[in-house]
Amino acid sequence: MAVSPHEVPDVAGLSIAVLGGTGDQGRGLARRFALAGHEVTIGSRSAERAQAAAADLGSDLGVGGLDNVGAAERGDVVIVAVPWEGHKELLGSLEEPLAGKIVVDCVNPLGFDKKGPYPLVVEEGSAAQQAEAVLPRSRVVGAFHHVSAVTLLDPEVDKVDLDILVLGDDRDATDVVRGLAARIPGFRGLYAGRLRNAHQVEAMTANLIAVNRRYKAHAGIRITDV
Amino acid sequence: MAVSPHEVPDVAGLSIAVLGGTGDQGRGLARRFALAGHEVTIGSRSAERAQAAAADLGSDLGVGGLDNVGAAERGDVVIVAVPWEGHKELLGSLEEPLAGKIVVDCVNPLGFDKKGPYPLVVEEGSAAQQAEAVLPRSRVVGAFHHVSAVTLLDPEVDKVDLDILVLGDDRDATDVVRGLAARIPGFRGLYAGRLRNAHQVEAMTANLIAVNRRYKAHAGIRITDV
Repeated sequence: MAVSPHEVPDVAGLSIAVLGGTGDQGRGLARRFALAGHEVTIGSRSAERAQAAAADLGSDLGVGGLDNVGAAERGDVVIVAVPWEGHKELLGSLEEPLAGKIVVDCVNPLGFDKKGPYPLVVEEGSAAQQAEAVLPRSRVVGAFHHVSAVTLLDPEVDKVDLDILVLGDDRDATDVVRGLAARIPGFRGLYAGRLRNAHQVEAMTANLIAVNRRYKAHAGIRITDV
Repeated sequence: MAVSPHEVPDVAGLSIAVLGGTGDQGRGLARRFALAGHEVTIGSRSAERAQAAAADLGSDLGVGGLDNVGAAERGDVVIVAVPWEGHKELLGSLEEPLAGKIVVDCVNPLGFDKKGPYPLVVEEGSAAQQAEAVLPRSRVVGAFHHVSAVTLLDPEVDKVDLDILVLGDDRDATDVVRGLAARIPGFRGLYAGRLRNAHQVEAMTANLIAVNRRYKAHAGIRITDV
């Protein structure tokens, strides 16, 4: 019997770590996964800053804070939401604690100048492929590139209207990440290609920023006919 | 008084030429613009093949067929839907007839191998930027990258659920193209950044093809919160 491509595994019990969880994107995802009932740990260079960011989300959410090594060890699934500068070095330093884990890269390598945002050239092709290059023992997936931190952190927003494009070469890992996306009300996780097709998904964030500026919006993407 | 970014100029009287109009994407766009009441001319290397493709769309639509030079001269707005191979040479040969015109590039430079589709590296950055480089006197806009030829050609489909991401540095030209997009029922034209952000929109077609294969769909994109 054919399995629907929309089917996802049960991921309710998975704990989640968010490296770079003190940034807006990371805090937004940490908040939404904690609201969905997951054990969530924010990782940062400094455990104190991680704990402060976690506390800032509200003590009722029970989000923890550890240094990046501790967070990488703690999460069943580890989300990478660090700034692009230092991305490679940080992940390289976590090769051991991230071994065997699903690592979800949501970093968008963008530059900004007077004309607005533009994608940076990445030697490996994309942030996700760079993660794969420095984490040969991890199961790297690209996802959550287009989330609006403002929206995720807004207590007035119960449901976020967004398709999460999930990229990767490991079917089970992309299925888990699609399942995690579906834990956030309004999100839908869709498989959207192999990791070598991650660059344009990351870079599309520059277009969404252009849309935001022109239309005064927090733009996201929906895929039609699926 | 502030003008809404959704406002578009009246484009009902513009004639449209589609270079590469004998291909599926070109025929699909030609058909829809003719249905919307525009004078449409298909361009091809051979005027005979252009006329045959035009006739194939149904004589009631009144689409014309000319060689590429004739079509480029005829259209107020010229859509480029040629194969990526030969894109640069063809446009370079039409520099004179395309001077001063709005040229809408919808070409997606993609490669295919056993693992599926992937974006090709384009020296100029993108097909649209290549068009700009060889057409210094034209007003180049990128748009209509994600249209499904099958859907556009399907007589059963009255309305196509799709946002057309419009890229360019010439505000009036992108406004005209947004207006043209809105002439096709279900389409919405959205400004989505400068031409330097065209690459990822073109390349995203590889992801949509991956979606189509996994979900048995004709995937398109909608931008949320706009």
